[in-house]
Amino acid sequence: MSIVVVGSVAFDSITSPSGKAENVLGGSATYFSLAASYFTEVRVVAVVGEDFTAEEESVFRKRGVDTRGIEHAKGKTFRWGGTYSGNLNEAKSDFTDLNVFESFQPRIPSEYEDTEFLFLANIQPTLQADVRRQLNGVHLTGCDTMNYWIKGTPKELAETLKLVNILLINDTETKMLAGESNLPRAAHKVLAMGPQALVIKHGEYGATIFFREGAFGIGHHPFRAPALPIEEVKDPTGAGDSFAGGFMGYIASQDELNREVLKRALFYGGVMGSFAVERFGTERLQSLTRDEIEARFQVFRELTHLQ
Amino acid sequence: MSIVVVGSVAFDSITSPSGKAENVLGGSATYFSLAASYFTEVRVVAVVGEDFTAEEESVFRKRGVDTRGIEHAKGKTFRWGGTYSGNLNEAKSDFTDLNVFESFQPRIPSEYEDTEFLFLANIQPTLQADVRRQLNGVHLTGCDTMNYWIKGTPKELAETLKLVNILLINDTETKMLAGESNLPRAAHKVLAMGPQALVIKHGEYGATIFFREGAFGIGHHPFRAPALPIEEVKDPTGAGDSFAGGFMGYIASQDELNREVLKRALFYGGVMGSFAVERFGTERLQSLTRDEIEARFQVFRELTHLQ
Repeated sequence: MSIVVVGSVAFDSITSPSGKAENVLGGSATYFSLAASYFTEVRVVAVVGEDFTAEEESVFRKRGVDTRGIEHAKGKTFRWGGTYSGNLNEAKSDFTDLNVFESFQPRIPSEYEDTEFLFLANIQPTLQADVRRQLNGVHLTGCDTMNYWIKGTPKELAETLKLVNILLINDTETKMLAGESNLPRAAHKVLAMGPQALVIKHGEYGATIFFREGAFGIGHHPFRAPALPIEEVKDPTGAGDSFAGGFMGYIASQDELNREVLKRALFYGGVMGSFAVERFGTERLQSLTRDEIEARFQVFRELTHLQ
Repeated sequence: MSIVVVGSVAFDSITSPSGKAENVLGGSATYFSLAASYFTEVRVVAVVGEDFTAEEESVFRKRGVDTRGIEHAKGKTFRWGGTYSGNLNEAKSDFTDLNVFESFQPRIPSEYEDTEFLFLANIQPTLQADVRRQLNGVHLTGCDTMNYWIKGTPKELAETLKLVNILLINDTETKMLAGESNLPRAAHKVLAMGPQALVIKHGEYGATIFFREGAFGIGHHPFRAPALPIEEVKDPTGAGDSFAGGFMGYIASQDELNREVLKRALFYGGVMGSFAVERFGTERLQSLTRDEIEARFQVFRELTHLQ
């Protein structure tokens, strides 16, 4: 089945302890699309400027990603610069030039209207809700957000959360959204706001999925997937969006939707996140094989499973 | 088989968001002994003062713990007071009265000399090394330490690390000991200092065991065990020592010593740590059953294992 992702396409300039990359293709929709493309048919909705050329478009096309939803606007593409130092968990933004992204009004092409799955990457919550309403036939919607919207537009975000099935955020965002410092308690408060499942990303410690009672199966036991202990994280940019791409892409590839599928999806999320950070930008995500993905899935399994 | 633990016995006064407990039995040797007692025969080496009565001793005895190694000295038992606030990961010390613990010189009773396993709880590294040398017949030695010794007595600690098989410390301690901010790289540096395996405790995110190449089996792939998402941590005191008790106790109960045993031991460590924090002091560890422990082991398995 197919999945639509709505988010950003950007040119990133990244400095990390491992080196530097200038003006490389990035953005949430890009990382998500490439990661999900190994599992299912991906359709992207985003906006780019006149500096986005056939070369960049071919990165999507080579992975079979449908780019008819990429709007070409006058002006420059979103540009971001960031530096990671000792603590690779957080980037210091060097510059953020929103450019054409500033007035982004996502429009779903008519060719996308039969899409079964939707991922709302981290954009303004009202835009997320609009997109969800434009795609009334979707079976399942995943959603990301960030501190900026949790603090700045809480009412709008609350409306969006009522429309989504699975929210994917990190520990800090979960605690802030719930106003609660204990993580499992915070998770249950977030689930009461709308989503049937909440994926909390713990960075180097993996991720936990919490279920609302009765959603996707019986009970409310959470499930944890690991992250790979990685000796050299070259560039953490896009790890969360690559995680979401692996997670949602795997879900969209399955005939059934139950807890066991969501648990495996959590592993595939970790797998795609672990590939993303091995190289600068999207380099690693452009050239994977399904065999490499399955081999790493086995590494994740061996990392956590008793005999 | 049996295990000797050398560490502290204390009276703790604890304040947490869930309440207060005054002068309750605590100390690393106490938490470790009780947790390990569900798996194997435990022998304790510690020092107490005149305020340690038959009532406290009965807490050990009821769990079958051999207390012949507890030295009764003139003066008062070690007393510690601590307060946990929003961040339950760290206590603010209200007071630390070392009392008889200040001049603790661990002596191994002759009845303990045939012991197969040893756990050196967090005490001065030279004392840890002395104990290890007194017990020349042990098969396997586990060891804990802390920032205070890593910074204050690095040479002494380096000598001790050459004598131990498994070191159990947390993320911050691992990075400080290795002088390296990437955790897997830090782990390999620590393994080069002596231990064949390193257990890194991640608090609410569980624990990872790293193996030196070829130790306890083939390869050097790490293994991760979860921690239980707990909605109300009443008192985090002793969680690490209870983890060590479950981990070492399970190892001592097994006929063989290989990676699969160590992986299961990591799960049992998490299980005992999760029980410890449910009530103040050692209350929960005094009254468990093996069935409750096995049931929780299953919960940990379901939390992490795909079908």
